[in-house]
Amino acid sequence: MLSKPKFIQKCYRPLRLTYNSHTRCLSINRWRSQKSDLTEKEVENEITSPSGEAKTVKLHSNKIGVTNNPFTKNLFLGRFQKDWLNFPQIDQNDFAEVNGIVNHLEKYFDEQVDSKAIDENAKIPDKVLEVLKEIGMFGQQIPVEYGGLGLDATKYARLAEVTGRDGAISVTLAGHQTIGLKAILQAGNEAQKQKYLPKLATGELVAAFCLTEPSSGSDAASIRTKATLSEDGQLYFLNGSKIWISNGGIADLFTVFAKTEIINDKGEKEDKITAFIVEREFGGVTSGRPEDKLGIRGSNTCEVHFEDTPIPVENVIGEVGKGFKIAMNVLNSGRFSMGSSSAGALKKLLGMTTEHATSRKQFHQPIAHFGMIKEKFGKIATQIYVMESMAYLTAGFIDLYEEPDVSLEAAIVKVFSSEATWQCVNECLQIVGGMGYMKDYPYERMLRDARILSIFEGTNEILRLLISLESIKFAGREMKEMIMKLRNPLQNPKFVLTTAISKLQGRGLSDKAQLLYLGNNVHQLLWPYSEKLEKSVYLLKSTVEIVLERYGNDILHEQMILRRLSDIAIDIFAMTACLSRTTRSISLGHRNFEHEIKLTQAFCIEAYKRINQNADEIDGVNLDRTYGEVADDIYKAKGYVPEHPLSKPW
Amino acid sequence: MLSKPKFIQKCYRPLRLTYNSHTRCLSINRWRSQKSDLTEKEVENEITSPSGEAKTVKLHSNKIGVTNNPFTKNLFLGRFQKDWLNFPQIDQNDFAEVNGIVNHLEKYFDEQVDSKAIDENAKIPDKVLEVLKEIGMFGQQIPVEYGGLGLDATKYARLAEVTGRDGAISVTLAGHQTIGLKAILQAGNEAQKQKYLPKLATGELVAAFCLTEPSSGSDAASIRTKATLSEDGQLYFLNGSKIWISNGGIADLFTVFAKTEIINDKGEKEDKITAFIVEREFGGVTSGRPEDKLGIRGSNTCEVHFEDTPIPVENVIGEVGKGFKIAMNVLNSGRFSMGSSSAGALKKLLGMTTEHATSRKQFHQPIAHFGMIKEKFGKIATQIYVMESMAYLTAGFIDLYEEPDVSLEAAIVKVFSSEATWQCVNECLQIVGGMGYMKDYPYERMLRDARILSIFEGTNEILRLLISLESIKFAGREMKEMIMKLRNPLQNPKFVLTTAISKLQGRGLSDKAQLLYLGNNVHQLLWPYSEKLEKSVYLLKSTVEIVLERYGNDILHEQMILRRLSDIAIDIFAMTACLSRTTRSISLGHRNFEHEIKLTQAFCIEAYKRINQNADEIDGVNLDRTYGEVADDIYKAKGYVPEHPLSKPW
Repeated sequence: MLSKPKFIQKCYRPLRLTYNSHTRCLSINRWRSQKSDLTEKEVENEITSPSGEAKTVKLHSNKIGVTNNPFTKNLFLGRFQKDWLNFPQIDQNDFAEVNGIVNHLEKYFDEQVDSKAIDENAKIPDKVLEVLKEIGMFGQQIPVEYGGLGLDATKYARLAEVTGRDGAISVTLAGHQTIGLKAILQAGNEAQKQKYLPKLATGELVAAFCLTEPSSGSDAASIRTKATLSEDGQLYFLNGSKIWISNGGIADLFTVFAKTEIINDKGEKEDKITAFIVEREFGGVTSGRPEDKLGIRGSNTCEVHFEDTPIPVENVIGEVGKGFKIAMNVLNSGRFSMGSSSAGALKKLLGMTTEHATSRKQFHQPIAHFGMIKEKFGKIATQIYVMESMAYLTAGFIDLYEEPDVSLEAAIVKVFSSEATWQCVNECLQIVGGMGYMKDYPYERMLRDARILSIFEGTNEILRLLISLESIKFAGREMKEMIMKLRNPLQNPKFVLTTAISKLQGRGLSDKAQLLYLGNNVHQLLWPYSEKLEKSVYLLKSTVEIVLERYGNDILHEQMILRRLSDIAIDIFAMTACLSRTTRSISLGHRNFEHEIKLTQAFCIEAYKRINQNADEIDGVNLDRTYGEVADDIYKAKGYVPEHPLSKPW
Repeated sequence: MLSKPKFIQKCYRPLRLTYNSHTRCLSINRWRSQKSDLTEKEVENEITSPSGEAKTVKLHSNKIGVTNNPFTKNLFLGRFQKDWLNFPQIDQNDFAEVNGIVNHLEKYFDEQVDSKAIDENAKIPDKVLEVLKEIGMFGQQIPVEYGGLGLDATKYARLAEVTGRDGAISVTLAGHQTIGLKAILQAGNEAQKQKYLPKLATGELVAAFCLTEPSSGSDAASIRTKATLSEDGQLYFLNGSKIWISNGGIADLFTVFAKTEIINDKGEKEDKITAFIVEREFGGVTSGRPEDKLGIRGSNTCEVHFEDTPIPVENVIGEVGKGFKIAMNVLNSGRFSMGSSSAGALKKLLGMTTEHATSRKQFHQPIAHFGMIKEKFGKIATQIYVMESMAYLTAGFIDLYEEPDVSLEAAIVKVFSSEATWQCVNECLQIVGGMGYMKDYPYERMLRDARILSIFEGTNEILRLLISLESIKFAGREMKEMIMKLRNPLQNPKFVLTTAISKLQGRGLSDKAQLLYLGNNVHQLLWPYSEKLEKSVYLLKSTVEIVLERYGNDILHEQMILRRLSDIAIDIFAMTACLSRTTRSISLGHRNFEHEIKLTQAFCIEAYKRINQNADEIDGVNLDRTYGEVADDIYKAKGYVPEHPLSKPW
């Protein structure tokens, strides 16, 4: 309905894209926007329809009893879960309540939260925390029956946009509920929930998540903190030290992960990780001095020490020895919101930067008019759009499905958002120049705050490994047979030939490569970009095949290859999120949907380039061995290797 | 002599480079290293030889009376100044003195300079400044006859490696001598030099450079500070405000740029910029409170206000109304040292990071063993190598030639080093993870300090414009005729055809493209990379032709194109610096020259990719118009444009 021919021309001509929309027109049979008056029953039918076509869903009503297929893992097999192109349609009635909180909270943040002072004093005023507790911010996802707001993931993401404006507040809230109390929520028993959740929901108790130790960061399984069962079997005694614990100095309750002795399947004794609820009042709990940090200075981060802290056995969360999975689930489930919290902060910063650029004059005109400044604005807006789209797409899936497998998508949101936020804040600072370097303005503080995002809640390095390794594990099972054939080309000549042709198609060398028919799910105006998505999926698949064929199980140790596979997956998911959201915006006739098309265009074109480059570097020439050797030389020399340029020869 | 066949194989095989060295062997006739026992007379003959071949030079003796051709400007015409491939051979005898200072200074910095405290207290202890003054650090480039150390650019760059370890000290020294007193040194008369330089050299007087104003940053010509001549013609009265002045609060002497009324060629009154030496004691000088900054906190930055400050007419530097050029010359001449000062700081940080990575174990092994960590080390080392090579190459040229035109090369060193330093510190911080975020370690402080580098002494945006616009201006004169022909293809069909073919060759599609014969100047082991350099130069030339043909004079306003041309030039200069230095290291048989080859290999391959991508984006599909439109939308909306993903349709 909105596909104005004139607009198409306007959109594509500048890029000289020669996409021929004619060949794909037949596959368009209907549009979501034409179905807006379906009854609820009809909607449910649509959802359960296996056609893979565009669906209208009534989100945030009851979940539909379907476990969706994982998106990223399937990508590695060249399979595209088209339901991820259905950007959630929100039932506005359901949102009245949360919009009320949002408005209230925005007003409060604008008027009462002094982020500069919080940063300077390295403390969030008690009054601010009280207000946040009063309006339920400490129990956002705790169900209503336990005294929380009972927000689903989408609403939680929406509120994070506001709380994300202050890094310290954002991290304090996250330390409490995104990770601190999450294990009780996800894996606690009814008695534990009844005992603790109500007080956690009101903030009467503040929670902290205690996993990291001095010798155990990314390698969480190697923790040394130990819980020993008493002889009467009633108490565990906890001993050990945790570091970099958000809220460590202010928390009343800790989710602590510690090794406990169990008898394994073979009847042998073994130390396995168990999760515990530990109250500070149990005794033997001490906190170190607050860490003096680069950013998020108003949040409390410190060491927490446990010395013979007695824990009643009923405070074990889930099963004894099954704590590692609980920890990973907690971390996996919280990451998606970094997209919306960062977007919230960035949108505000972009507004300030715009104000500066359009009013600051140099060379007789606003600096906003300069091409290099425009380029920065364009890239910043694109990145915000991507992280926002990713976050709400993932949140929608969490809400829509029963226990959906979105751990990798949440990790993708985290990796992308943390790095994009860093770049965006950095570019905003650069646009305002010297001003941005001064503490009178928020740019430098936001830069400092943003720097933690790539490090905490799983470093981006470990998450990139997670994304590609989990996907390869998933894909590997299915590909095994095929790889056997590829490794024995003489026995399977025809198969090898077909595969080779199919790989060529994936590199964009053939028009027949579009096998996914995403046109059904993506608005016609976006077809030039969904075509790039299709090619990218195919390219990922064929690259994964090459990798598995070449390295087999040794791929585990090829981190530079794994990094590239993850980066391809990140870009594909990001393209999907953009196409999904923009299709919705066009179909709903959103104000400024033309602008959204430009953002999606920009992102998809850039992403497609990166994807091809990553695939090329995996398949062909790369510098991996050179960098590896350079690093080894550095390790051997304990630092920089080259002779000084002024040094004399030996 | 060092071209071991085995080594070649080891070096190239991992990359599967298919470079055929056979075709170039004939052009190698002699090597610099074979000429190390030339007499001084012979050396001079070599230098003045116009053959463009490898030369051995005795640096830091008397300058040779040759003004070298500008490197970057000529690049835009496809001309390559081969003398830039002669990395300076240092006469070690000449360096005994400066090595003594270096050793002394390094020991002092290691033992007595507490950068953490300087950052925390936002002050460099008086005692530290006294020591620095005592050993001559405030008068490094002031000639001996005026009481300075009389260091040439190379030695100055060497000392900057040490002082660069502390950002605040580095900026304080730079504020004083790299810019503060430089106008007197470069453009002052003998009386001014005799009066001021001795006290500036000892640090009895501290200097500051006063150019920037609230409404005048990058657009320096638009300053409003005004100096009015008294009726008796003996005094100027200075009025106006300067901001972000390094040393503004501690300086005794200011180089101030202010508008003065002159009579121009047409006999009309006009306001033009004049440079003045202003002593604080002249009266009417006040400094604002020190700025509270993100980094370089120990350096003093503040506003400086002048209210009817009387300046004797003899304190005009150079000619009245010719101050703008003086300011630009001061800024242009200081930038090259950012490469060595940053490299100095980074080499130390790399050592610390190596220590951490090789001792920190996760997953039962040092994190140094992981591929993603190795990749980071490899890239960091490469970037340090590039900035170090660039800095000393440029410094060598400054020392070697009489008034060499190296303003663009110095700008390139500044742009590259500032951005690379930011990335390197950021990656070191990421390698050490959470630790890097804590103030107990130097990573976060160095990150904060590094952030100013892209902003001050000319933002990287304005320097990128400088690099490409100055070069285009230079090239444009010569290309004018050719462009006329290209614009009239029907009148000059043969010319157009030849040019088209020559362009194709530049894109690496023909083996005949290598016209520069750099093999004479680059060691055989590096030919695969000098070949990329040759192609890059040709590609830049043909891209410049395309740009001039397409845009003509309108290129002035095409900043996204100009940005890419600058980035190509930056990469070409960086490749040149690496090839030049590595050739020297191989020829001299430097310890670890194999490592240097790897760094050069890595950089040249990555740079060549970027160069091709930039050229492709200039010539073909790019997102410039899209980003431009997105930015315009943002300006109109005063911020982020898209509808919220949860919003309802209108």
